[in-house]
Amino acid sequence: VTESTSSEAAAGRPAGDPAGTGEFGLIAAMTALFPQHEGVLVGPGDDAAVVAAPDSRVVVTTDLLVEGRHFRRDWSQPYDVGRKAAAENLADVAAMGAAPVALLVGLAVPPDLPVAWAVALAEGLRDEAGPAGASVVGGDTVGADQVVVAVTALGDLQGRAPVLRSGARPGDVLAVCGRLGWAAAGLAVLSRGFRSPRVLVDAHRRPEVDYAAGVEAARLGATAMVDVSDGLLADLGHVAAASGVGVDVDPGRLEVPAPLRDVGGALGVDPVQWVLTGGDDHALAACFPATVQLPGRWRVVGRVEDGEGVTVGGVAHEGPAGHDHFR
Amino acid sequence: VTESTSSEAAAGRPAGDPAGTGEFGLIAAMTALFPQHEGVLVGPGDDAAVVAAPDSRVVVTTDLLVEGRHFRRDWSQPYDVGRKAAAENLADVAAMGAAPVALLVGLAVPPDLPVAWAVALAEGLRDEAGPAGASVVGGDTVGADQVVVAVTALGDLQGRAPVLRSGARPGDVLAVCGRLGWAAAGLAVLSRGFRSPRVLVDAHRRPEVDYAAGVEAARLGATAMVDVSDGLLADLGHVAAASGVGVDVDPGRLEVPAPLRDVGGALGVDPVQWVLTGGDDHALAACFPATVQLPGRWRVVGRVEDGEGVTVGGVAHEGPAGHDHFR
Repeated sequence: VTESTSSEAAAGRPAGDPAGTGEFGLIAAMTALFPQHEGVLVGPGDDAAVVAAPDSRVVVTTDLLVEGRHFRRDWSQPYDVGRKAAAENLADVAAMGAAPVALLVGLAVPPDLPVAWAVALAEGLRDEAGPAGASVVGGDTVGADQVVVAVTALGDLQGRAPVLRSGARPGDVLAVCGRLGWAAAGLAVLSRGFRSPRVLVDAHRRPEVDYAAGVEAARLGATAMVDVSDGLLADLGHVAAASGVGVDVDPGRLEVPAPLRDVGGALGVDPVQWVLTGGDDHALAACFPATVQLPGRWRVVGRVEDGEGVTVGGVAHEGPAGHDHFR
Repeated sequence: VTESTSSEAAAGRPAGDPAGTGEFGLIAAMTALFPQHEGVLVGPGDDAAVVAAPDSRVVVTTDLLVEGRHFRRDWSQPYDVGRKAAAENLADVAAMGAAPVALLVGLAVPPDLPVAWAVALAEGLRDEAGPAGASVVGGDTVGADQVVVAVTALGDLQGRAPVLRSGARPGDVLAVCGRLGWAAAGLAVLSRGFRSPRVLVDAHRRPEVDYAAGVEAARLGATAMVDVSDGLLADLGHVAAASGVGVDVDPGRLEVPAPLRDVGGALGVDPVQWVLTGGDDHALAACFPATVQLPGRWRVVGRVEDGEGVTVGGVAHEGPAGHDHFR
């Protein structure tokens, strides 16, 4: 009824074998992959990590990625799952206007999962975190029936106020940085048994997030910001509710990229629905005073108004405001 | 193939129904339970929380609790699972010599889990965190095949250096604060189909951790400290390895409390094995210079020596150094 612990290296064994006791085996194999950047005062291997918080505050968020719900092992490579797990948390940090600093990773794995799968996941975590400025500073591995990746991200506000969901004011413009609808279109493709177009399938497998845009928006004076994880309309709904305003999306300003148009046509789906309600792309949506000159990566797609809720061209949207997972 | 999101309240519905989208439904029902203490600058409900880090550093750790491995729903009430999930992370913060400040909770739940189960879990998290000084500042809920509780804990070093595993020096005394072997004995009882003695069964269900002892040890000049989560010998093995020393446990100083002696006799188990190798009690084990006057909650149980590894009365221990989970 108990399992013995072991400090043997995990290589060549199922990942689930040495799991369950934190710093042993698998976590050692993964930890070896993680470079520690500036600001990590105590890295992996002790009871906890110690991370610098230069402005005496820390931004912190956590999200879970579950096999069969957020990814499928037959649709996504472990490297992509690692990138995606890191990205969705780093994007939350960016959406506060903060610079990512550190990640912690809790990994639950079935006993028969190959160690190579977990190591590739760790490589994906590392490669998403590094360019964003974050080190993987700690974690835990345990056995479970399905893969669960629990990531916590820490960020640094660099002396600025956090950009909340609650600061939007009537007259602000609404702008978006990043993709909308790509991951949802990719999921639609995969769900119908196809593996192409590759650009959309890859968008489902891992988002491409412009983390620096979060700090940029804060510096530009963004009044509110949100990570688009559940769908543009759903996440704008949070901004509208928190700010006590209405948000109107201008359909004439919504870009529907060619791959979405093409696949929408082939599958008989209006691609605008993916743009409005597709999740998992982790674009940033931010509100700015109308006087702000926005750099090119920000696309104005609407405005903030007196009122409540989210409208599209002044009209309430029919159907769900967001959908992101596959069961 | 997709699920729609909903901002309806979760009460009365299965917990898995509204899960999967972070701030919706279940998380709202849970969040309402969490008071926000001093130091929480932005609490739950935005893309991320913001927590004060007064000395410009933050201690951070994460651990997963998995149904069927760390707890069973037929053996533990959800309230106890919440207390245990919080405790194992708060104990890691204490083992750095830090004061707990905040928790984040990622919760994966089967679709048919009653909301009341998740709410009771949240109450347990709250009741363990509050007296330790920590607020639950954020989280995520998703659907999964089994319950997984992923907790991240943050702590404040209050200007002190962290107490690492690597600072033990020959001549130091080894002292323990907290229970050893109680949870393992409780698990042995449950595994054999019994429900008593209650004091041991409860010790398995949730640990009793003296968090303030971590800060006290740091103030007293502890040279090394570790949370005993895997078993005394296993965790002292980490200290010995990290510090480049040997650690000897004096069997004559090991207390074997009456409940462990009684159950050991009834089950035909040497209770000293539970004391030496039982996990999940989350005692703190710390090394101190021999000149330090230790308050009563610290029991000297051994000493640090030249050499390597962990011995008991000068002799290597036979068998596994730690065991804590039940499959």
